[in-house]
Order: sequence, then structure tokens, then C-alpha cells
Amino acid sequence: MTTPGPHASRPADARVGYTVLERMVTHTGPVFRVESLRVADSRGRIARRDVVRHPGAVTVLAQLADGRYVMIRNQRIAVGETLLEFCAGKLEPGEPPAITAGRELEEECGYRAGSIVPLGTFYTSPGFADERMYVFLATDLEPIDRRLEPGEEIDVVILRRDEIEAAIRAGTLVDGKSLAAWMLHVART
Amino acid sequence: MTTPGPHASRPADARVGYTVLERMVTHTGPVFRVESLRVADSRGRIARRDVVRHPGAVTVLAQLADGRYVMIRNQRIAVGETLLEFCAGKLEPGEPPAITAGRELEEECGYRAGSIVPLGTFYTSPGFADERMYVFLATDLEPIDRRLEPGEEIDVVILRRDEIEAAIRAGTLVDGKSLAAWMLHVART
Repeated sequence: MTTPGPHASRPADARVGYTVLERMVTHTGPVFRVESLRVADSRGRIARRDVVRHPGAVTVLAQLADGRYVMIRNQRIAVGETLLEFCAGKLEPGEPPAITAGRELEEECGYRAGSIVPLGTFYTSPGFADERMYVFLATDLEPIDRRLEPGEEIDVVILRRDEIEAAIRAGTLVDGKSLAAWMLHVART
Repeated sequence: MTTPGPHASRPADARVGYTVLERMVTHTGPVFRVESLRVADSRGRIARRDVVRHPGAVTVLAQLADGRYVMIRNQRIAVGETLLEFCAGKLEPGEPPAITAGRELEEECGYRAGSIVPLGTFYTSPGFADERMYVFLATDLEPIDRRLEPGEEIDVVILRRDEIEAAIRAGTLVDGKSLAAWMLHVART
């Protein structure tokens, strides 16, 4: 069964040396779906690859006028832990990532940003998922009321740069996208 | 339908303020499975959360005696691109992560490590997956023959630290786990 999806027009086969022989959708949900692919590599060897198709997401490093950063403690059902993270959220269909970034910062953290600039992008788990993360630095922040969605359990925490670096060294910042986003920020400052 | 899996014994509900009302396995494959959860938050509000259950993985920063790092260009079917990455691979059942790290470095890069030390750990995509990444620094490297698995299309590249930092700034290193792993390394050096 071949099922074209939102990513079907992507010329993946042309850019890399493999051929997709078969594509079957095995899971469809509100956030992602799963495709089970049968692929042949450049030597004709056949392999199965299950791929999570995700709409993409944003991470927002929000910096206050005093230099501190707005972070969250986010109850993560998938890992059964509450994690220290930067604000994040998935893209809505057709929504430019910078708009998503501003919206998520308002909803999760209660800040409206006067400036939102891109820091870069990365894939969170390219071994099995196509989720692309767009990273932004938000500044010129104005406090507003938060608007959490059902199922979101999020506390806002304000940390200095040295406190974030200490959390990385201590192993208490274990959210991969936050580490990668901080790397993009540090590489530019 | 409630299906206990490898993670079912994890006391997730006790550590965070939600209750799993229903758990249904909707996808089962060789690398991961998907559970569709119906959860109630601490205020009794009901939400659906689809979760990818993954065995976990390792990332290996392998450093040669001259200070340069062994990286790979890895054809990633999930994102349809060839990515610059550090060596990585998923955990086999019961295999300690440091052993996986040594094995993957031999198979993908063709180096046997005399020393493998942990740099830290993180979750790659805690919004929808429980994949935990264990990061190692491998040194005292001896060249051996590579052993690629079917479907793996991987080239080894050797880069200096400043070349890796330039790739991060230029946006040509877009593998999240490699960015996060490099952050853990940089935070300690």
C-alpha cells in the first residue's frame, strides 16, 4: 500500500542513495503518524525503516532585560519526568515558525516578545523521526497572562546564564532540544 | 486495551501529576512501538498523548590523538538528507550503553577505543518519545575494519574542533543529538 502524506512531495530519494519500495501508514494520531518503509540501498540491499512523521516544532530562548532566561519545568508524560526546558511547541499547519515561537512563549510562559530572531534549526531524532526544530531568541519581553492547554503542567523558572551552564554540567538539564538550542545560542555569543 | 511493555514498570504516574486511564499499543516495529495514552491531569482534565517507546541510544564523540574528532556523514531516510553527525546507535536489549558505544564506533567508523567515558545523557524528543541518549567520549583510538549493517550508508569524516564550531555557526550541523552531545562535551572542557 502506498499512501502519500504531507511529506510525499519531498524528493528524498533523489538526494540520497536509496529507493523507497513500499510505504505503509501504521499509526495516525493528532501529533504524528508512523510510516513503515521498505527501502533498497545503493547496493540493492533491502531494509525496513519505520519513520515518525511530525509537523516540526519551535524552541524559544527568551531573555529578560537583566540577561536572565525564561525556562520551564514541564511535566513530560512520554518520559515520566518533569524536565527543565526552554519553551517549545509544535507547528500548526501553515504557521510560520517565528509566529509559533511567539504564541508558545505567550501561552506557556506568559511573556509577549518585542523581538524574535532565528538561531538555527536541527532534527531532534533523525534516526526514526523527521521532526525539525526551529530555534529562536526572544527579547524585549512584556509579562502577560499565561494560557495553558489541557494536559499541560508547566512552571516558569528564571535562570541566569551561569545557572544554566551549571545545570548542564550537573546533568539536571536533560532535555535534548534545550541542550542543542543552547549550543546554537552559545556558538553565536 | 492495556498492554504492559518494557517501560510498564516505570512509576511514571507517581513522579508526575497525571494518571494514565488507558494505554493502547498502535504500532509495533523492530526499533520502536507507539502507545496511545488517555491521561487525566491533576485537575481531572482528559487528554490523549501518543508516545514512541524507544530502547534508547548512544552518541560517541571519538577524539584522535591529534585532537581531531571522528564524525560521519549519515544518509538519514527519515529526513531524506545526509547529515553530519557523531557516531551513534541504538541500545541492544540488556547491553550497557558504554558497550554499545564501543561497538557502534567500531562498526560505523572503524575505530577501536582504549577509553570510553560518559559525558552525560538526555532525552531526544520528550514531547512524544522516551528515547534516552547516552553520550560518551572515546579516546585512545586504533583503526580497524568497519562493519556496516544493511541499509547503512555512512562516510567517515575527521574534523578539528574549530571546524565543528564553524559547522554549528554555519548551520551545516543540524543533527540535534550531535549538537546536544557537543554541548555536554564543551561544558566539561
